[in-house]
Amino acid sequence: MRTLITNASVLDMVGETANIEKKDILINNNIIEKIDKDIDQNIEIDEKINAKNMLVMPGLINTHTHLAMSIFRGYKTDKKLMDWLENAIYPVEDKLKPEDIYWNSYLSCLEMIKSGTTTCNDMYFGMNKTVEAIENTGLRAVVAWCIKDDSIKDKIEKTREYAQKYNNNKNSKIKIYVSADAPHTCNPDTITMCVNLAKELNTGLHIHLAETSNEEKKIKSRYGKRSTEYLNDLNVFDVPVVLAHGIYVSDSDIEILKKIKGGISHNPVSNCKLSSGICNVVKLRKNGINTGLGTDGIGSTSTMDMFEEMKTAAYLQKVNAKEPSSILAYDILKMATIDGAKVLGMENEIGTLEPGKKADMIFIKTEKLHMCPDNDICSNIVYSANGADVDSVMIDGKLIMQNRKMLNMNEKEVMRQVKKIAKRLL
Amino acid sequence: MRTLITNASVLDMVGETANIEKKDILINNNIIEKIDKDIDQNIEIDEKINAKNMLVMPGLINTHTHLAMSIFRGYKTDKKLMDWLENAIYPVEDKLKPEDIYWNSYLSCLEMIKSGTTTCNDMYFGMNKTVEAIENTGLRAVVAWCIKDDSIKDKIEKTREYAQKYNNNKNSKIKIYVSADAPHTCNPDTITMCVNLAKELNTGLHIHLAETSNEEKKIKSRYGKRSTEYLNDLNVFDVPVVLAHGIYVSDSDIEILKKIKGGISHNPVSNCKLSSGICNVVKLRKNGINTGLGTDGIGSTSTMDMFEEMKTAAYLQKVNAKEPSSILAYDILKMATIDGAKVLGMENEIGTLEPGKKADMIFIKTEKLHMCPDNDICSNIVYSANGADVDSVMIDGKLIMQNRKMLNMNEKEVMRQVKKIAKRLL
Repeated sequence: MRTLITNASVLDMVGETANIEKKDILINNNIIEKIDKDIDQNIEIDEKINAKNMLVMPGLINTHTHLAMSIFRGYKTDKKLMDWLENAIYPVEDKLKPEDIYWNSYLSCLEMIKSGTTTCNDMYFGMNKTVEAIENTGLRAVVAWCIKDDSIKDKIEKTREYAQKYNNNKNSKIKIYVSADAPHTCNPDTITMCVNLAKELNTGLHIHLAETSNEEKKIKSRYGKRSTEYLNDLNVFDVPVVLAHGIYVSDSDIEILKKIKGGISHNPVSNCKLSSGICNVVKLRKNGINTGLGTDGIGSTSTMDMFEEMKTAAYLQKVNAKEPSSILAYDILKMATIDGAKVLGMENEIGTLEPGKKADMIFIKTEKLHMCPDNDICSNIVYSANGADVDSVMIDGKLIMQNRKMLNMNEKEVMRQVKKIAKRLL
Repeated sequence: MRTLITNASVLDMVGETANIEKKDILINNNIIEKIDKDIDQNIEIDEKINAKNMLVMPGLINTHTHLAMSIFRGYKTDKKLMDWLENAIYPVEDKLKPEDIYWNSYLSCLEMIKSGTTTCNDMYFGMNKTVEAIENTGLRAVVAWCIKDDSIKDKIEKTREYAQKYNNNKNSKIKIYVSADAPHTCNPDTITMCVNLAKELNTGLHIHLAETSNEEKKIKSRYGKRSTEYLNDLNVFDVPVVLAHGIYVSDSDIEILKKIKGGISHNPVSNCKLSSGICNVVKLRKNGINTGLGTDGIGSTSTMDMFEEMKTAAYLQKVNAKEPSSILAYDILKMATIDGAKVLGMENEIGTLEPGKKADMIFIKTEKLHMCPDNDICSNIVYSANGADVDSVMIDGKLIMQNRKMLNMNEKEVMRQVKKIAKRLL
C-alpha cells in the first residue's frame, strides 16, 4: 500500500531551526519512504492526499497521561493535588469497572486525535481495557499498569504478560512500560521490584517525580534525602525513565538527571491548575536534560489538547525566566514532537518526518483568520493555533481523521457512554 | 423587530455564583426584553433561533487591544517590550497607511467575533479607519486615538470631533475615549491635557500603566515616585480610567487604585510573551479593584481569542498564589464579561443577560468530546473550550455569525488584503 501526499508545506522537525518547504511525501505501508519536491506521480500509488493549504508536521507526542480519568473533567476542581486526589478522585476510582476504564480511555483517545496527538504515554490501572481502547482508536502508545504497594504480584504478572504480547512485535503500536506510581506513594521495595521488572523486560519505567513541595518534604523526612537522590540510590536510573513533572529538582538533582535515558514530562497546565509550581524547563534544557510535554489526566488538566500545553509551557517559561527568548516557538514544537519521542525512547521511530520513520503526521489548516498573516509559521502554530485547526491525522500510515471527521469512530456513542458513567459515579 | 431564542441553556452571569437554566430569551430590536421558561410563542415574533445544545452567555469583553496590529502576528517575536517596540514595531508603524489600518483592524474584529468577543476597547492611531472597520463588522467598541507627545493638537481635535459624533448618540455601538499612551512615553503636560479633554467630553481615559519593571524605574528616576502615584498626582483618577496591565503596583498603589472608576485590564498572554511579569489579580480583586481581561494587540499577543486569556489568567493566578481556589472558573468568566463591562463603565448596558440590557450574546456548542462530561459547565467553558467552540454571535440584537459563518463579511478578502500589506511592509 503506497500513499502519496502532494502540495504539503512540510515542517519536518529535523534540524535545529525550522525548515518548512513545499514537498511531496511518499508512504509505503506504515513507513515514510521519501520526502521530496515533485515525487514522480507515475509510480504505482494506491491513495493520493492533496494537502494544499496545509502544514504537515509530525504528530504530537503526549508524554504523560491517565486516559481513563476523562470522567473527572471539571469534577470538584480548584483543589490542591493531595486534597483533590484523596477527597475527590480516589473514592470514585475505587468504583470504576473495566467497562468504565474502556469508555473513559476511548474518549481521551478521540480527544487527543482530534487535537493532533498521535502517540501518548499512559499510566493507570485497568491497563487491559485502556489498551483495548487505544487499539480500537488507532493511536500509538506506551502503556503501563500503575503499581503502588497493594496487589503488587498481580500487577507485575499483568505487566509481564502484556509486555510479552506487545513488546516483541515490531509492528505493534503499543509498547508496555513498567510504572511505579511515585516515590511518596510506593515503598522502596515496590520501586526496586518495578526497576527489576523493567530490566527483565528490557523496557522503561514511568514514575511521577517531585510534583509538589509537600511530596519533597515527605521524602526528606522519611529518607533524609531529596526524591531524585532517593530514586538514584534505588538504581531507578539504570533503566530508561519517564519522570512526570520534575518541578522540585535542585542543582544537585540536575547533576543526577544528566545521566538518565528517557527524560522529563513537563505538564504545565496541570501544574498550574493544581498550583503545584513551575518546572524550570529552560534550566533542564540548558543542562541537556531531555524534556517533553504531557497533558496529565483530565481532572488535573481539562483538555487533552497539546496545543494548550505548548502555549502554556511557552508562557510560563518566558515569564518565569524574565526573558522572552529563553524558549522559542521552535523549541516548544520540538518538546511536543522529537523531544517527546526521546522521552519515550522512540526517537528512531517517530517525532520527525524522515524516510524510514513511522508515518505519524498531522495536517494543520493554516488559511485561517487567526493565523494570518504568516510572518512566522512556527509562532503561528504554537501561539495562535489550537487543536481545532488540525484538519487530518495519520497514524502508522493510516488516515484516522480527515477534514475533522473521525473515519471509523462514533463520537456521539462514546460521549453517551461517558455521560452515563459520570451520572452513575459522580 | 422581535427575536425569540428557544431551548437555550442560559448562563446569565448575574449572580455571585453560576446560574445555568434552560430558558427562552425574547429580544426587542437591540434590547433583551425577557428571559424566562417557556415564553409564549404566540406573540408576534420576526425571527426564531433554536439554541438546542448551546450554552448562551453574554458576549466576551476585550478591555485592551490595538486592533490595527494584526499584521505583526509572529513578527520578530520573542523579544522584550521596549526592544520589540523600538526595533521591530515602531519603524513599521510609521509606514502604515490609512487603508492598512482599516484592513488590519478589520481582521482583528473578525477574529474577535469568531472567538466570541462582542465588545472591545481599542487604543491606536488612525482611529478614523479603525472606527470604520469596527462599524462594518458590527462590533461594539470603545475607541481612542492614542496620544503621545507629538501632534497633540491634531489628535485632541480628532478625539473631540469623534466624541461629538458618537458619544451623544444613544444607539451608537461606538463610544470614544481619550487615550494617553503611558506615563513613561508622555510628558506630564500631555497627560494633563488628555485628562482635561476627558472631563470636557464627559468620557474616560485609556492608558498603559506599570507594564514592566523598567518603566517603573524610569518613572521613579524621572519623578521620584511610582507611576500610580504619579498619575494620581496628575489627577488622572478624577475621570473613569482603563489602566492596561497594572503589573507593578505596590500596596500603597492599591490604596490609590481603590478609588478609581473603571478598572484594570489584565492581559496575561501578552504579559507572559513579553516576560513583563504576573499581575496579582487575586490581590486586586480582594481589594475591590475591578479587573477585566484583554488580549493586547497582535504581536505582543498572538490571537484575539479571549478563551486563551481566560485560561492563561486562571493558570497564572493559581500557580502564582500557590492555591487552586484563589481564583475560580466563575471569577474568570466574570472578568471576561460583567467585570470587563465595569472596566469600560458599561455595566448598565452589557456584561450580563438581563432584561433591559443590550442583546450581546454568544452561543457555545457544548456537545463536544473535550467538554464531555459536563460535571461543571463553567469549568468546561474556561478550561476546556476554545474560541472555535463559539457557534453563533449576536451583537445589538443582530446575528453577526451563525454556525461559524460570518453572515455579511468576506473572510478570504480580508486575509488577502492583510497578507498584501504584510508583504509590502515586513
